[in-house]
Amino acid sequence: MPVNLAPPTAESLHPVAGVRLGVTEAGIRKANRRDLTLIELAPGSRVAGVLTQNRYCAAPVQVCRQHLASGDIRALVINTGIANAGTGEPGLAAANATCAAAAQLLGVDAAQVLPFSTGVIMEPLPAERIAAGLPGCRAALKADGWFDAAHAIMTTDTVAKGASQKVGVGGTAVTVTGISKGAGMIKPNMATMLGFVATDAAISQPLLERLVKEVADESFNCVTVDGDTSTNDSFVLIATGQAGNAEITDAAAADYATLRDAVTTVARQLAQAIVRDGEGATKFIEIAVSGGATKEECKAVGYAIAHSPLVKTAFFASDPNLGRILGAIGNAGIGDLDVEKVKLWLGDVLVSENGGRAASYQEEDGARVMKPAEITVRVDLGRGAAQGKVWTCDFSYDYVKINADYRS
Amino acid sequence: MPVNLAPPTAESLHPVAGVRLGVTEAGIRKANRRDLTLIELAPGSRVAGVLTQNRYCAAPVQVCRQHLASGDIRALVINTGIANAGTGEPGLAAANATCAAAAQLLGVDAAQVLPFSTGVIMEPLPAERIAAGLPGCRAALKADGWFDAAHAIMTTDTVAKGASQKVGVGGTAVTVTGISKGAGMIKPNMATMLGFVATDAAISQPLLERLVKEVADESFNCVTVDGDTSTNDSFVLIATGQAGNAEITDAAAADYATLRDAVTTVARQLAQAIVRDGEGATKFIEIAVSGGATKEECKAVGYAIAHSPLVKTAFFASDPNLGRILGAIGNAGIGDLDVEKVKLWLGDVLVSENGGRAASYQEEDGARVMKPAEITVRVDLGRGAAQGKVWTCDFSYDYVKINADYRS
Repeated sequence: MPVNLAPPTAESLHPVAGVRLGVTEAGIRKANRRDLTLIELAPGSRVAGVLTQNRYCAAPVQVCRQHLASGDIRALVINTGIANAGTGEPGLAAANATCAAAAQLLGVDAAQVLPFSTGVIMEPLPAERIAAGLPGCRAALKADGWFDAAHAIMTTDTVAKGASQKVGVGGTAVTVTGISKGAGMIKPNMATMLGFVATDAAISQPLLERLVKEVADESFNCVTVDGDTSTNDSFVLIATGQAGNAEITDAAAADYATLRDAVTTVARQLAQAIVRDGEGATKFIEIAVSGGATKEECKAVGYAIAHSPLVKTAFFASDPNLGRILGAIGNAGIGDLDVEKVKLWLGDVLVSENGGRAASYQEEDGARVMKPAEITVRVDLGRGAAQGKVWTCDFSYDYVKINADYRS
Repeated sequence: MPVNLAPPTAESLHPVAGVRLGVTEAGIRKANRRDLTLIELAPGSRVAGVLTQNRYCAAPVQVCRQHLASGDIRALVINTGIANAGTGEPGLAAANATCAAAAQLLGVDAAQVLPFSTGVIMEPLPAERIAAGLPGCRAALKADGWFDAAHAIMTTDTVAKGASQKVGVGGTAVTVTGISKGAGMIKPNMATMLGFVATDAAISQPLLERLVKEVADESFNCVTVDGDTSTNDSFVLIATGQAGNAEITDAAAADYATLRDAVTTVARQLAQAIVRDGEGATKFIEIAVSGGATKEECKAVGYAIAHSPLVKTAFFASDPNLGRILGAIGNAGIGDLDVEKVKLWLGDVLVSENGGRAASYQEEDGARVMKPAEITVRVDLGRGAAQGKVWTCDFSYDYVKINADYRS
């Protein structure tokens, strides 16, 4: 049961001029499941992406990195079922075969296709099933295919994830629409499992590459379910340039800020949707850390709290066993942290200061703020002006059940 | 249900000349529970310890650090129920009051007493109950009190943990006996929750301090249950010098090696006992990493595997979903790891090489070696001669149950 997460409707995901999407059942790992998605981009579209830093990065991630560098991307192919990670040379061949098949179908070069895979690691990808399925995807291509695509990229997700915004950029109406998937093996490092956001805004390639990093740092790079950075994390931002706005080329321009805010809003909704639908999640937790010397240490404290199985199980139990949060803060790797200066709040309740329990703290207040499905943890480190946020979920019986059963 | 862990018997824990132990029910957090232990050391005993590096280190850990530095320790006081961590100045006062009470009772200085606490974090320690309980401990002091003490220091442990060895050092019979506790919040960094080992061997103070670090690195610093380094980790090594051997003063001497091996054997049994009794554990897993550039990176890979909730739940399910192990290796923070050179074995089965699944690997072999209660994971990083080991357990429904229920 996702936490306060309404699935998108077909109408809520606005088409983006220059983008068409089609899905099919390719039988990649199991039958009767939409498991293959083709996204076709109009000529002149620009694409930038951030990809996983896991050293066992998947074959499609390696191919994406090459193809993104050469530019002029015209299509994306996304399969579920098999991650094509930990598959060595045969995996690379399968990813390249996927690109070649899509390229032939669309009359473009293989280097103009980006491949994405998600599913089980270390099992071979049946590239021939993808090739056989692609014509079905092409036949299904449509501008309002975002809703279908959001469903076709799901694995252990319980609901589809999509978000959409319309904003005015320099007097021109611009659309930003995106989809994402992921529920476990979620601690993105440069991107989440799979996130695709497109806009029809015109923006220069260098600025698009800056934008995708800025947005990732404020969205997908702030969430974690279980601390396991995936082998396949990919976040791709597409700008088709068909809205008709004057091309954005200056990071200091108001138009850039407007577009960045819209893309960030969409990306953050998609990233938070992954946490709200985290495997077994019953709570959505925002961890806001301030007073740090650097943003990095704020996020390190946020992740130390978010990854502690003891903290996560206490949230699941709604038990204000808040000393566990202090223990996690103390483990965040800040060697010169002065715990006398640290303050901890749960919701609006001051829990700890001066190295211990706050004099004003009452256990019944802690119990009260632990109950809702949405909880905010605030930490002030008392050593600077930097801040950072992390979003996570709790740790329940169902996480174990899902991950003990997955694959079987 | 601990994994292949027989509890010690009263007879299996040999007395150590110069050490007496006594326990009582002090009612520290709950009634009718042996929760207070006093260990009395004969004059001339030497003590060295390694303590947690958590920045929220407990008040007793701070006091231990001071008292160990001044030397001439004559007593240890250990309470369960309350960890006296995250308790600020009042916590320090309570730890000092505990030392003062024991000192008065035994006719020594407060600085000659080491305090240890384990239990719930951020709740006040009732020092007056400890003071009231100490006379009962003193009345119960006996040389063969190790068995009782092993029970009195338990918290969420399901069985008591103790180990004992007799070895010849320079022709003299020497005894090494130890006890430990801990089942959750276990990822020691310099020591485990609580481990106490005593020997009657004579060894110089500088060498004892070297020995405790060497032993910790090969025992308590190799285990993890949930990755949460505790606020109270303490491992203390006592040498009473009453065996009659010539004092060991040279780290290159054969006697030092003999004693180190005996102490390491006892400490490793105690450390592994904590994992075998890990919260909810159904499997005991040894992760042996070789071929690293440094021992540190070998252990980093071991811990990345041992801490991955996805790997741990796959072990619980006996599901050879071994790509998750590759994912964890890729996340261990070795930026220049060449996965083409990495090899992975489960038991005697080669699972992965050349960046992907080994050609010889059969899923039924993986399923076979996943079944037993004891599993060995071997990783060769292919980049050097260093090696390191980590011991851990799996992640089951019961871990969530225990930690969602604990305290309530």
